[in-house]
Amino acid sequence: MLGNFTYCNPTKLYFGKDALNNLGAELSQYGKNVMLVYGGGSIKKNGIYDKVLSVLHASGKVVTEDGGVMPNPTSEKLADGCEKARAAKADLILAVGGGSVCDYAKAVSVSAYCGDDPWEKYFIRMEDVDDGTKIIPVGCVLTMVGTGSEMNGGSVITNHAEKLKIGHVFGENVFPKFSVLNPEFTFTLPKYQMVSGIYDIMSHILEQYFSGTDDNTSDYIMEGLLRSLIHSADIAVENPTDYEARSNIMWIATWALNTFVAKGKETDWEVHMLGQAVGAHTDATHGMTLAAVSLPYYRYILPYGQPKFARYAVNVWGVDPAGKTEKQVAEEGLDEMEKWMKKIGLVMNISDLGATEDMLKGITGSTLVMEGGYKVLTEEEIYAILKASL
Amino acid sequence: MLGNFTYCNPTKLYFGKDALNNLGAELSQYGKNVMLVYGGGSIKKNGIYDKVLSVLHASGKVVTEDGGVMPNPTSEKLADGCEKARAAKADLILAVGGGSVCDYAKAVSVSAYCGDDPWEKYFIRMEDVDDGTKIIPVGCVLTMVGTGSEMNGGSVITNHAEKLKIGHVFGENVFPKFSVLNPEFTFTLPKYQMVSGIYDIMSHILEQYFSGTDDNTSDYIMEGLLRSLIHSADIAVENPTDYEARSNIMWIATWALNTFVAKGKETDWEVHMLGQAVGAHTDATHGMTLAAVSLPYYRYILPYGQPKFARYAVNVWGVDPAGKTEKQVAEEGLDEMEKWMKKIGLVMNISDLGATEDMLKGITGSTLVMEGGYKVLTEEEIYAILKASL
Repeated sequence: MLGNFTYCNPTKLYFGKDALNNLGAELSQYGKNVMLVYGGGSIKKNGIYDKVLSVLHASGKVVTEDGGVMPNPTSEKLADGCEKARAAKADLILAVGGGSVCDYAKAVSVSAYCGDDPWEKYFIRMEDVDDGTKIIPVGCVLTMVGTGSEMNGGSVITNHAEKLKIGHVFGENVFPKFSVLNPEFTFTLPKYQMVSGIYDIMSHILEQYFSGTDDNTSDYIMEGLLRSLIHSADIAVENPTDYEARSNIMWIATWALNTFVAKGKETDWEVHMLGQAVGAHTDATHGMTLAAVSLPYYRYILPYGQPKFARYAVNVWGVDPAGKTEKQVAEEGLDEMEKWMKKIGLVMNISDLGATEDMLKGITGSTLVMEGGYKVLTEEEIYAILKASL
Repeated sequence: MLGNFTYCNPTKLYFGKDALNNLGAELSQYGKNVMLVYGGGSIKKNGIYDKVLSVLHASGKVVTEDGGVMPNPTSEKLADGCEKARAAKADLILAVGGGSVCDYAKAVSVSAYCGDDPWEKYFIRMEDVDDGTKIIPVGCVLTMVGTGSEMNGGSVITNHAEKLKIGHVFGENVFPKFSVLNPEFTFTLPKYQMVSGIYDIMSHILEQYFSGTDDNTSDYIMEGLLRSLIHSADIAVENPTDYEARSNIMWIATWALNTFVAKGKETDWEVHMLGQAVGAHTDATHGMTLAAVSLPYYRYILPYGQPKFARYAVNVWGVDPAGKTEKQVAEEGLDEMEKWMKKIGLVMNISDLGATEDMLKGITGSTLVMEGGYKVLTEEEIYAILKASL
């Protein structure tokens, strides 16, 4: 932990089968107008919508609904949501869904009264929210696991006209005030979505792990998180209603991206830049875009961060280093990772997500270049990695 | 993560070499009367007292000093501190020191206006603070690492007349509002104190690790924390001013006992009950009492929790399980732990801390029995473990 940093995470988490029982007490702390945000309507089929609405009504709230948040929330949807939140005079935005719904709720929360085009202000100019703009409090009821959006200030919005999918990390004042985490609420998720979420979690950890050369406690913690994730994912893929496995995965997702493991550490995030660029051009599921670009990226940067890749192989994948060179150990770790990714059903090629060779130049142009990884990529290198991902 | 739980930790942490630069901004959020709490005066020798006082004066605070907090704060000192805090109309208690000083500050914080004998109310009757009692906010500047008191609601007080040393775990409203964690502030600590703090951290983790048989992400995280702790302790014992090692140890201490790794998990704490009973009769340094009773306790309960002890041996101490029984692996793990404890200079026997055979009955009587470990101890078993610790 070599740098100076501040840690503060104000989000209150209610975890477990009975977590929703705490919603009523939380709601009593806010005014009567609640904007209920959700996605494509799966919460109406699995009964979560009815459960939440009955708590809202029992709490005497006036509910404005804002459904139809898409998997990759758009700048147009954001503009509509802001208008709706202002019209409803929302005292609280209650997001019921996965990371996209939480991300969108936070974007509306800061944008409704920002007096500017939120896409321009937050996602292009990357301004902070410290100018006294009224922020509408957000609470979350999570139904899909992966993004960690339930306990951080992150928000990813897609602008189709500009072919850009950009994340903004807001400060503590935009973190959800509370999040309800009931692992059972994730049981009805289709396997494709579950596995995609699992890889999103793994990628969040790896983006923070594969950076820096210092001796940092966070790396040891992340190795533990990864081992638990791999173990529980194997169980959940076989039996999606294994409560223990799904609850471990839910908890790992939250702690993988609530700022904790990044403290005092360099981080990379190039896989997300590559994956988000693929997503902006294909609208493919987030976690699958990350899976499809990860190994070509990691195999390319391996020589620049070989000791960490070797450590990863031994401590996470159990590779026996006896009698092998560091390079062999490091490569074997990525081979083990590849086998596991295929086994749990991840998409391993961007062509399977709708990307074609003639799109590669455009995707390359949409890929932001990060500076915290073991190699700062040139445009040619990005193109080559994307080509290897086809 | 099988149970239902709530997680919320409101403490703001300022970490790093420049962490104290944030104290002024924090102080501005509180009224003018500050009670400055510290221990035996080492902060006057190492310059930290002067640094803190200059920030307090620059912030225009009226400072009331309450020094002389002993390593095991007493119920009498607590009563005095409450009177002093009331007389000073303290708007903030600023604790500058180690865990004892932070523990004491929290006890004064809730007790000054509690209208009762705090020892009776909190440490004997174990009442919660939810009755509207005025709580004086606490901030910490940490100078010794181990207890985790800087980010939790724990407070341990000793009553010499009753030969009892008891911890109370207060709720979030008693957690420090902020803590300043500068690893350099721990550099001048004598080696005995540093090593004692390191074992206090290890014991906090093990108390939470050696409990339960479920598959819990927290156990994976704790294995990571332990591996990082052992690695950094080895470096710090050789070179106490290695900033990186000391900073890792400081960070591990905070996360070992800020409620995080206990969430959704059973925990034990019998080693602390044994160690605190030894402490109540000998006034020995806390971490050393834990070290001296740990192995006799763990070797005794090993048969009742053998799979976890074997897992510990492999994942924390790197024991190779090939060709060995689970029992052999488990025992080898504790043997490795013992070698390491001796190497870093821990006290391995309670007789070296002033305990004698004729005190064992009294210490046994002062030992509380916990129910979360792999074996609920009888009085005879406690006596036998203490005898083996002599």
